[in-house]
Amino acid sequence: MSVAPAFDAAAMSLSVDDAALLGRRAVLGPAYRLFYEKPFAPVRGLDVWLYDAAGRAYLDAYNNVPSVGHCHPRIVAALQRQATALNTHTRYLHESVVEYAERLVARFPAALDTVMFTCSGSEANDLALRIVHEATGRRGLIVTENAYHGVTAALADLSPSVQSRAYRGAAPGGAPALPLAPHVRTVRAPDVQRAGLRGAASGPDVAARFALDVRMAIADLQRGGVEPAALIVDTVFASDGIHTDPVGSLAAGAAVIREHGGLFVADEVQGGFGRTGGVWWAFERDGIVPDIVTLGKPMGAGHPVAGLVTRAELLADFGARRRYFNTFGGNTVSAAVGLAVLDVIEEEGLVERAGVVGAHLQERLAALALRHAEIAEVRGRGLYIGVALIDPDGGPGTERAIGVMNRLRERGILIGLCGLDSNVLKIRPPLTFGVDHADLLVGALDAALGEA
Amino acid sequence: MSVAPAFDAAAMSLSVDDAALLGRRAVLGPAYRLFYEKPFAPVRGLDVWLYDAAGRAYLDAYNNVPSVGHCHPRIVAALQRQATALNTHTRYLHESVVEYAERLVARFPAALDTVMFTCSGSEANDLALRIVHEATGRRGLIVTENAYHGVTAALADLSPSVQSRAYRGAAPGGAPALPLAPHVRTVRAPDVQRAGLRGAASGPDVAARFALDVRMAIADLQRGGVEPAALIVDTVFASDGIHTDPVGSLAAGAAVIREHGGLFVADEVQGGFGRTGGVWWAFERDGIVPDIVTLGKPMGAGHPVAGLVTRAELLADFGARRRYFNTFGGNTVSAAVGLAVLDVIEEEGLVERAGVVGAHLQERLAALALRHAEIAEVRGRGLYIGVALIDPDGGPGTERAIGVMNRLRERGILIGLCGLDSNVLKIRPPLTFGVDHADLLVGALDAALGEA
Repeated sequence: MSVAPAFDAAAMSLSVDDAALLGRRAVLGPAYRLFYEKPFAPVRGLDVWLYDAAGRAYLDAYNNVPSVGHCHPRIVAALQRQATALNTHTRYLHESVVEYAERLVARFPAALDTVMFTCSGSEANDLALRIVHEATGRRGLIVTENAYHGVTAALADLSPSVQSRAYRGAAPGGAPALPLAPHVRTVRAPDVQRAGLRGAASGPDVAARFALDVRMAIADLQRGGVEPAALIVDTVFASDGIHTDPVGSLAAGAAVIREHGGLFVADEVQGGFGRTGGVWWAFERDGIVPDIVTLGKPMGAGHPVAGLVTRAELLADFGARRRYFNTFGGNTVSAAVGLAVLDVIEEEGLVERAGVVGAHLQERLAALALRHAEIAEVRGRGLYIGVALIDPDGGPGTERAIGVMNRLRERGILIGLCGLDSNVLKIRPPLTFGVDHADLLVGALDAALGEA
Repeated sequence: MSVAPAFDAAAMSLSVDDAALLGRRAVLGPAYRLFYEKPFAPVRGLDVWLYDAAGRAYLDAYNNVPSVGHCHPRIVAALQRQATALNTHTRYLHESVVEYAERLVARFPAALDTVMFTCSGSEANDLALRIVHEATGRRGLIVTENAYHGVTAALADLSPSVQSRAYRGAAPGGAPALPLAPHVRTVRAPDVQRAGLRGAASGPDVAARFALDVRMAIADLQRGGVEPAALIVDTVFASDGIHTDPVGSLAAGAAVIREHGGLFVADEVQGGFGRTGGVWWAFERDGIVPDIVTLGKPMGAGHPVAGLVTRAELLADFGARRRYFNTFGGNTVSAAVGLAVLDVIEEEGLVERAGVVGAHLQERLAALALRHAEIAEVRGRGLYIGVALIDPDGGPGTERAIGVMNRLRERGILIGLCGLDSNVLKIRPPLTFGVDHADLLVGALDAALGEA
């Protein structure tokens, strides 16, 4: 889930068809939101481009689900081939799900030897909670201040970002009034800027603060008679505003939770499959081996495929006590699509490409920051980049960010927002993004900032 | 989830390739189970047939996911067409998800005017819990004794059937020792046979007993200071052993929970989309309008599509307080596939066909029961049929049912088991099943029973 501001019905100068569609959309009820002040209605997609009904092309610098590019012909071919042959479940023996699991674990540290499949990142994170609970016999969970881990009841209970700001009753930047579950505590994300550590902050400073926060959260849980079961973090801290550097916070947090008998769960739904460039998994930047790694979004290039990777021993209690069957998870079609995504990432060198193009993009954005004082920070890794905006007083530039996002949409470039104050431009294109696309984005952003 | 006994590694006379695959399957960990004493390894599917690598055909009398038949060419074509054009999410405006929602609500009573989409029946039931909680402000939930509503943490807490029998520590037929959540109570399914009401039982008798059970569960919740939020039932009571007749229990249960300020949630993941014959939804047999109806399995013919239908007013609080976004739920491809499934069901007349073929099959099975004393009861509606077996002492014929299921598999017919004692043959073929297929099944069952 993005925390980009969502607009309900503000249809500005929509086409007649789109305006009619917007009205009919009430059939989906009040919980659905659209992106942008003027909703976007694509009808076709190819690689890094989306097209509306009028044929106008939009550069997609937002969608991480089609990380191999929209409608990749190899993925579509694999989907069609397997859907034509057989679509059955994991209670029958089939080669593809086993091969897919083997290919996946081969991409992880050796200790992570087992895979379970689900349909969505939410189901994967929810399953991780169940495994954590059975393996540790404990309930205490620690997440970040603006975490998002999914839509299930158990995950909503530990995802502050799914609560609307009005419901939270919090001032921008203030600590949200969280109706989180009583066994959940939050810690601040390793955010250099918000910690007031900018400039002087070293890796150890930030990591030490994060570790201390985790320690305090554990102590607070124990004060209430709850033992800590797990620290669960999105490894790029996306909903908290994207925080990948300096390195060290993941390792420090993992060490503290383990010292207290808990597990470290790396939510790679946002950061996985090469997104951060040069490495397959965002947790690798800290040189650690998580206890459970959850996967989602880009895993099936839009097909509902997700899952988790863990150590077999952690599943022993869960496997003995519970039956688990996911009707569609790991079905023959999902496995075939997942395998095709791995093939494309590997053969097109997208992990390396994300690093190279991402570095170029960050460099260009950093140069832009020298000319636009509202850019407080450019951060991230690979093709997961955040551009934090401030207002004239130095506070979070929420309105500015909303304006820039909408003006970019008018200019044919799609981005989103993130962070506790929704003041961070979220730039997260398909990994097939090139330097030419990056330059196009930077040029348009330069212009859009100038219009502020 | 089926509660059919699952076998771990008992590979009897598997081919060399299948035996090797079974070994490699350890990569999926201990929570995955296979059907049948000798695991089944299909490689192709078409209509009501599955084929193994040796080319042997198996008649599928088990799988309700491909309810339009395996690998239906129209579904595959719709999948391929949309996957080639565009696969994006519900935060962009797109015709297909709106059209799909409109087509769905048109199949429901007028009061049920709103649709939300998920990837799985589990996500749909979990979302229903969240909506129930926000709409009622209450937590108490009532389910049946051997209910199964999904794999999420919140649903496992109210699904007795996901706990292994060993873990439950219960004797067959005994009340399971349930580690259910403290806000959950169970009631007996409207089971004529187990209630000792067989023969003499009238609809009002069974419904009255069910209503009384719900009343007692509500009183027990209230005794613990918990107000009842919802009664949630699988409308065919599949995991409880399939109980569709006599009619009246759904209506009676709904009346009681509403009288106490709670909601009635109809889980149509098993019974929906024409499965029970003549009607689209199993709840229709009782002439009621549920507050929430959850949908899954057959909805996308194997593509991970699910959702729920409800009244817009019930979503008001949820929509105001929570952000909800399901990355893959209702994406353009899922909507296109869902629409194609509706087209096929309508154009091939599968709802009516399920009624006609199901009646024929039940009649043939009833005739079989006259010659096989181990058949205690043939029940169900349309193409959701249960054949309850007893042992020589009149107790649940669990071992007999396991034997019959495995012998049918050897004879090239696929069925499953269900019920608290796993003594009920679960017959639930694609809705394209014909009278010839039904006769083939009955003939093989006759032989398999004779071998017992």
